[in-house]
Amino acid sequence: METLTVALDERSYPIYIGEDLLGQLSLFQPHITGKQVCIVTNTTLESLYLQTLQQTLSDYDVTSVVLPDGEAFKSLEVLTRIFDELLEARHNRNTTVIALGGGVVGDMAGFAAACYQRGVNFIQVPTTLLSMVDSSVGGKTGVNHPLGKNMIGAFYQPQAVIADVSVLRTLPARELSAGVAEVIKYGLISDADFFSWLESHLSELLAMDTDALICAVRRSCENKARVVAADEREGGIRAILNLGHTFGHAIETAQGYGNWLHGEAVAAGMMMALDLSARMQLIDQSVVERTAVLLAQARLPIQAPADMTEETFMHLMGVDKKVLDGKLRLVLLRSLGEAFVTSDLAPPLLQETLQHCR
Amino acid sequence: METLTVALDERSYPIYIGEDLLGQLSLFQPHITGKQVCIVTNTTLESLYLQTLQQTLSDYDVTSVVLPDGEAFKSLEVLTRIFDELLEARHNRNTTVIALGGGVVGDMAGFAAACYQRGVNFIQVPTTLLSMVDSSVGGKTGVNHPLGKNMIGAFYQPQAVIADVSVLRTLPARELSAGVAEVIKYGLISDADFFSWLESHLSELLAMDTDALICAVRRSCENKARVVAADEREGGIRAILNLGHTFGHAIETAQGYGNWLHGEAVAAGMMMALDLSARMQLIDQSVVERTAVLLAQARLPIQAPADMTEETFMHLMGVDKKVLDGKLRLVLLRSLGEAFVTSDLAPPLLQETLQHCR
Repeated sequence: METLTVALDERSYPIYIGEDLLGQLSLFQPHITGKQVCIVTNTTLESLYLQTLQQTLSDYDVTSVVLPDGEAFKSLEVLTRIFDELLEARHNRNTTVIALGGGVVGDMAGFAAACYQRGVNFIQVPTTLLSMVDSSVGGKTGVNHPLGKNMIGAFYQPQAVIADVSVLRTLPARELSAGVAEVIKYGLISDADFFSWLESHLSELLAMDTDALICAVRRSCENKARVVAADEREGGIRAILNLGHTFGHAIETAQGYGNWLHGEAVAAGMMMALDLSARMQLIDQSVVERTAVLLAQARLPIQAPADMTEETFMHLMGVDKKVLDGKLRLVLLRSLGEAFVTSDLAPPLLQETLQHCR
Repeated sequence: METLTVALDERSYPIYIGEDLLGQLSLFQPHITGKQVCIVTNTTLESLYLQTLQQTLSDYDVTSVVLPDGEAFKSLEVLTRIFDELLEARHNRNTTVIALGGGVVGDMAGFAAACYQRGVNFIQVPTTLLSMVDSSVGGKTGVNHPLGKNMIGAFYQPQAVIADVSVLRTLPARELSAGVAEVIKYGLISDADFFSWLESHLSELLAMDTDALICAVRRSCENKARVVAADEREGGIRAILNLGHTFGHAIETAQGYGNWLHGEAVAAGMMMALDLSARMQLIDQSVVERTAVLLAQARLPIQAPADMTEETFMHLMGVDKKVLDGKLRLVLLRSLGEAFVTSDLAPPLLQETLQHCR
């Protein structure tokens, strides 16, 4: 097992990465302060791992909430079910909420933990590659609104992240690929060596080789933890983690949440950000091509849906959180392994990207 | 005008207390960073003060949300209307939410500001005595759940509190009295001199004498700010601010939110806490009597509703936030001006208090 630390002063916390961690009470124990535990999961994971985790935690008073599976249910209405359960089972301020699931479960359980009695303990047990390398680390929690993704939420750090790569064995191949999109992102934005490593180890990763998985999760979390430690509340540098996300969110919104997986939309979105970076002569076309090859090998889309017009993109990007005072801001690459945020965008080049990348 | 500071390091903020502050742009300006402002108010205040504030802020892009008036509407469903308005009017992360109202508006607008895009600027403009001396200071925000008051929320500090005592002229007498309950609380828990001052100046306060109002608001806020600065997230000492609130919440819940005003329930609840303190021989009976006289002069209830049984109280106090691991914790007095939190309660004496105080 490997242990990393997300360094945030009194809110610092460990990330444990390894095999068969769900059964290890000793990993959970130091992070649970009261007697009560509320496991939040979804209908798919309920039958796979809920019992294992309940057995591990059988010394505690454990209740659980099973949410419907999918991004379409990441809403305020569904969030209410967690509050209902916590109150009906009389959970007090010392309770610990455990998210057993992917990004949707983690974001919702984390937001519920942030709000329940104005904040209770929270442990992330991510069950998808995407949530292991991205959403479970860094404290972003929240739900969607019909008018925008993640528009309602909180920055709320967990007490610990327990990333058990064994659970990835039951992950559908499409979801594994979606996670690989975010893994590749870390190479692009801040770690050129890792990008090269991925070019030579992608097949092992896709075959779910344990060592390759642990290495990819560790390296991704190291990169993310470094950025989050430098800028917890996204006042500046943290925004580079959103490479491809402004385009990606537009794709997800246009297609309806859940039809494109988040990682798939990010893959196409990253290609658009790289295309624009190349058109603005910030990076060489070869970086765009190497990335396209890697994403395609990972069975990820490298173009936006053909039916999305320029107008749809511009409209949907207008309500994005990265818009400051009406100015569109995007994450672009200055070189392989170095991203930056800019609102200095040549509109005709952006137009070319929107036309070209679908 | 008087200015106090709530000292919370990088989250410190000023409280301005004075006359005719709603019209003073210079008080608002330093605390608004973007161009957008969203005023949250209620149907009652809309006709009284919304236009004045809109005129003061006419240099900004101002939208407003008018909520139904009353504690019964302090719910997740009504909260959603604020998010809808913010998104429909395309408010970005630099927007500023301004609460123009009493405790309900302040708690909801503050919670919406805490959650919108994971946190935007927030200014409190309290319009009731209760919210000036209590809920607008200290960063507690949130909504009720059918199973408990303030069960869903956040600690979220405003950028500034602007307490314009002129607006109290339109406050119904019953609501003024409800605010006086919390003012008296500060005397009881941490300021015996202020308690004596109240004994000799209560009639001026009830007559809305400007100097008396400013003095009472300032002194109350000083007491509250000191406690909040020592314990922002209620890990310990801050709980003394809840004198009477555990009993009071039970009364509010049993009677249905809004039938008893919060301050009225707190008044009866404080009498119960003092009665128990006297029965436990912590304070002299004379303190109970002086408090009863003061509360009665302020036209506040000094007994719980006659139809509330002991069982109702115990059941309702069981879901209170102050319950730690199943143990009931209460705020009691050690002397006039000195409160403390304890779970060391003699059950027969608590029973006597519950029987006697209604």
